[in-house]
Amino acid sequence: MNRIDLNCDMGEGLGVYSLGDDEAMLDVVTSANLACGFHAGDPLVMYRALSSARAKGVAAGAHPSFLDLWGFGRRPILGERPADVEKHVIYQIGAAQALAVAAGTSLVHVKLHGSLANMANEDDELADAVANAIGIVSRDLIFVVMPGLATERAALRAGLPLAREVYADRAYGPGGNLVSRKQAGSVIHDVDAAVARVLRMVEAQSIETQDGGAIRTRIDSVAVHGDTPGAVAMARRIRDALVQAGMELRPMAEVIASS
Amino acid sequence: MNRIDLNCDMGEGLGVYSLGDDEAMLDVVTSANLACGFHAGDPLVMYRALSSARAKGVAAGAHPSFLDLWGFGRRPILGERPADVEKHVIYQIGAAQALAVAAGTSLVHVKLHGSLANMANEDDELADAVANAIGIVSRDLIFVVMPGLATERAALRAGLPLAREVYADRAYGPGGNLVSRKQAGSVIHDVDAAVARVLRMVEAQSIETQDGGAIRTRIDSVAVHGDTPGAVAMARRIRDALVQAGMELRPMAEVIASS
Amino acid sequence: MNRIDLNCDMGEGLGVYSLGDDEAMLDVVTSANLACGFHAGDPLVMYRALSSARAKGVAAGAHPSFLDLWGFGRRPILGERPADVEKHVIYQIGAAQALAVAAGTSLVHVKLHGSLANMANEDDELADAVANAIGIVSRDLIFVVMPGLATERAALRAGLPLAREVYADRAYGPGGNLVSRKQAGSVIHDVDAAVARVLRMVEAQSIETQDGGAIRTRIDSVAVHGDTPGAVAMARRIRDALVQAGMELRPMAEVIASS
Amino acid sequence: MNRIDLNCDMGEGLGVYSLGDDEAMLDVVTSANLACGFHAGDPLVMYRALSSARAKGVAAGAHPSFLDLWGFGRRPILGERPADVEKHVIYQIGAAQALAVAAGTSLVHVKLHGSLANMANEDDELADAVANAIGIVSRDLIFVVMPGLATERAALRAGLPLAREVYADRAYGPGGNLVSRKQAGSVIHDVDAAVARVLRMVEAQSIETQDGGAIRTRIDSVAVHGDTPGAVAMARRIRDALVQAGMELRPMAEVIASS
Repeated sequence: MNRIDLNCDMGEGLGVYSLGDDEAMLDVVTSANLACGFHAGDPLVMYRALSSARAKGVAAGAHPSFLDLWGFGRRPILGERPADVEKHVIYQIGAAQALAVAAGTSLVHVKLHGSLANMANEDDELADAVANAIGIVSRDLIFVVMPGLATERAALRAGLPLAREVYADRAYGPGGNLVSRKQAGSVIHDVDAAVARVLRMVEAQSIETQDGGAIRTRIDSVAVHGDTPGAVAMARRIRDALVQAGMELRPMAEVIASS
Repeated sequence: MNRIDLNCDMGEGLGVYSLGDDEAMLDVVTSANLACGFHAGDPLVMYRALSSARAKGVAAGAHPSFLDLWGFGRRPILGERPADVEKHVIYQIGAAQALAVAAGTSLVHVKLHGSLANMANEDDELADAVANAIGIVSRDLIFVVMPGLATERAALRAGLPLAREVYADRAYGPGGNLVSRKQAGSVIHDVDAAVARVLRMVEAQSIETQDGGAIRTRIDSVAVHGDTPGAVAMARRIRDALVQAGMELRPMAEVIASS
Repeated sequence: MNRIDLNCDMGEGLGVYSLGDDEAMLDVVTSANLACGFHAGDPLVMYRALSSARAKGVAAGAHPSFLDLWGFGRRPILGERPADVEKHVIYQIGAAQALAVAAGTSLVHVKLHGSLANMANEDDELADAVANAIGIVSRDLIFVVMPGLATERAALRAGLPLAREVYADRAYGPGGNLVSRKQAGSVIHDVDAAVARVLRMVEAQSIETQDGGAIRTRIDSVAVHGDTPGAVAMARRIRDALVQAGMELRPMAEVIASS
Repeated sequence: MNRIDLNCDMGEGLGVYSLGDDEAMLDVVTSANLACGFHAGDPLVMYRALSSARAKGVAAGAHPSFLDLWGFGRRPILGERPADVEKHVIYQIGAAQALAVAAGTSLVHVKLHGSLANMANEDDELADAVANAIGIVSRDLIFVVMPGLATERAALRAGLPLAREVYADRAYGPGGNLVSRKQAGSVIHDVDAAVARVLRMVEAQSIETQDGGAIRTRIDSVAVHGDTPGAVAMARRIRDALVQAGMELRPMAEVIASS
C-alpha cells in the first residue's frame, strides 16, 4: 500500500494560448490528463504534451469535457442526454488515443473535466454513459473516479479498471463531493495545510470532509491543479511529502496493480 | 476488373444543421466518407451516419479537413506546416475510428476534404504528412487518392493500401487535377453527359481530361457529391449505368483486393 | 386596438447551412428577429436576411443568445453572471445594428433567443442585465417581452419601449411561462387549433393558460416559428385569420405607438 | 509636426486565456487596438480592455480580423470575396463600438489584424471593401494604414480620416511592405537598434527599407507589439526616446488634427 499516483491536467492551451507550465509539472507528477479539444487542447497542443509526457515517463490519459471552448468546460450545461455525452466522450478519447500513438505512447486512463465531472459524479445515468464510452474505446483504460460518488459506482458496474483520487487543495462535502468553488473554504490556499491534509488522507486511506467526517476508501491518486499561481511549487511540496512519508510515486496503473 | 466502388461524403451536418440526404444516399453508394468535426460533423452526426452506414452495409471512412467549420473546409488556408496538418488528421481519424467502433463498424478508408485535398494533391510534402497520419492510426486504412497526383505518390511511398478515384461530375485538367470550380465547365451539370463520361472512364480505366487527353490509370472508385440538388438521383443514375455495364458495386476494400 | 405584429426568427444559418425559408417567411411576417452569430447567423447570413427584410418592408430586430453555436442556444447554461451576459448581448446587438445600417435599414427591436430567453424570463437580475444592454445600444430599441414575466418587469423598470408577445403554437403555464418542450402538449401541432387560439387571445387581449386560466395583458405581437416543417403555411394561416378578424398587420413599433 | 501616437494591440484573450500585459501596456501607449472576437477577444475581454483604456486615457480602436480563432487570424485564408470580408469587418466594428459605449468611451480608429492586414495591403479591392466597411459604421473612424500600400490608397479614395503607421520592430521591403516573418531579419530583436531606427524614421518622416532605401511619408503612429517577451519594456523605451526627442505622445486623432 505504499504506492501513490500524482495526476495533473495538461495541454490546457489552444492555438497561441496556453495555461500552466506543463514542462515543469511533468517533472513532478506521474500521470497527465490531456485536454482533448472540447474545453482546451488542439491537436498540436495535445501532441506536444503527449510527447513531453512520454519523454519524461509520465503516464497519459484523456481529459474529456463538455463542448465549451469559451467557457473552458466549466459552465454547467443542462439538458445533454447521456447517450449524446457518450458520443462526445468517445470522440475525444479516440482522438487523444490516436495522438498518443503518434507521440510514441498510449493512453492509460480517462478523467473527466470540469462541469462534466461534477455532473457525472451526481448522476448515475450520466456516469454510466461515460463508463460505456471509455469501455468502447478500450476496456483497459482506467476510469479515474471520485470515491463514493456516481463515477465510482459506474466504473464498478462497467467492470472497468478504476483509480480513486483525492484532491490536494479542495474541501470535501459530507458525501465525498467537492465543495462548490463558490463557497468559502472550498479551495485550500494554505500550502502547508493542503500538504498535511493530503498526507493524512493518503496514509489513512480516508477522505476528510469539511464537517469533520471521514470517508474510508482506497486512494490511488492525488490530483493537483496546474493552472493556478504556485501550482508547480505546491505539487512539488506534495510529492516531497509523500516520498518522505515512504510512498513510492508511480503512475496509477502500477498503483492499482499493486493494491 | 469488373468491380467498382461508389463513394460519397456523409455526415455533413452540425448540431441542428444538415446537408444532403444521407439516408437516401446510403442506399446507393458503397462507401461513405465521414466528416470528422473540423469542417462539418459532430459526434452525434457522425455516430448517426456511421450507424446508418453499418446498417446498410456501406463501408465507412474518415473525411478529414482543415479546421474551418465556418468555411466548410473549402477555404484555402496557407502556411500550415505539414507536420501540423499531420496532427490534425490523426486527431480526426482517431475520433472517427472510435465512433465507428461505437456504431459497430470500423473505418476502412480515409479521403481528404476540400481545400486540404486540393492542396495535398499539389504538394508532395503535405501528401506525405497525410499518408503518415493515416499509417499511424492504422496501416490497413485505404488512402483514397487522385491518380497521377501527390496523394497517389504519397500512398505508394508510404506503402499504404490505396484506392484511385474519379469524380463523376468534375472536369479534369491536363495533369489529372480537378479544374477549379471558379472556371467555366468545371462541374458537369448535364446528368446524361456525366453518366456517359464516368462509364467511359471506368470501362477504359482512363481519365478524360478537359483538353481531350487521356490518363491511363486504375480506377477503383467513383466519387459523387451529396450536397447538391439532384445528388441522389445522379448517384442512382451512375450506379444503374455501372451495373448495366456489368460492373459489380462493392466497397473499395473488395475492389482493390480483386485487382 | 386593431393593429398586431407577427414576428419570426430569421437568419438561422451558418456558412453553408441554413434553416427555414426566410424569403417565404418575409412575405408573411412584419418583424424579423435576426440571429446574431452566437447561436446561429454569421455576418453574411445576417446581411442577406437584413437586406431581404428591408426590401420587403419587414422590421428587423436583434435576436441575441448565449454563446453556443453547437447547441443552437438551446442548452441551459448555468453560472453565467448577469454582468457578463450583458456584455454578450451588447456585442451581438452592436454587430447586428452595424450590419442593419449596411443593409440600408436599422434595428427596431431586440428579442432574446432560446435558453437565454427562458432564463431571463425567470430571473429578474438577468432580465435587468439584458434591459441594460439594450438601453446602452439605443434607448429606442423595443424590448420584446413575455407578459407577466421578468423580461416585462425589466423593460418597465428600465423605461424601455416594450412589445408584449404571445406564441402561436406554444402552451402556457399558469404564470404565463411557456410550458417546457419536454412536456406533452407543450407545442400545439394542430394548425386549426393554434390559429383559433391565437385569434381568441389577440381579440381578448388575454393569454390562455394550459390549466384553463386567463392572463389579461396587452398583446402587441404574435411569434411564429420558422424552422419547423409547415412553418410558412402556419404563419400564413395565422396572418390570414388575423386580417379576416379585422386586424391590421404592422411592425411592432407601429403597434405600440397606436396603443 | 511634433506629435506622435503609439499604438498596440489589446484584449488578445479568450475566456480563461490571455496574451500580453494589457494593464502595463496601457500605461505606455496612446492608442489601443481591440481584438473583436474573430481572432481573439470575447465580449468580457473586450469590455475589460475598453474600460481600462478609458480609465487611462488611451484611445480605443477596433482590430478586426479574418474569422480564425484557432489560427489567431494569422493564417492567410484565400478565396474570401471582398464583399464578404466587408460584412465581417462591419460586424466586428459594430460589436466593438457598442461595447466601447458600454465602457464609457467610443471607438476612434480601425486597424486590421494579421493576415487580413497583410492581404488588404496588397489588394486594392480588398482594401476598398474594408474602407467601405469602416465608413458604413462611421465616417469619423480613422483608418490606420500602411504608407504606400493599398490600405492608404483605399482610405484616400474613400475620403476617410487616416493615420499612417510604422512598425517599431519590423523590417520593410522596398515598396513599404513588411518583410515576411519567415525571412531572416524581418523582426528587429535588438531593442537599441529598433529604438534608434524608429526615432530616425519619425524624425525624418521617412520609412527605412531593408535594402537601404527611403520612403518619404507622414508618420502619425508607431505600432508596437504586446504579445512578445519584453514587449512592455520595448514600448517604454520607444516612448521615452520619442519624448526625449521632443515629441508629444498623443492619440492619433490629435496627431492627424495637428498635421
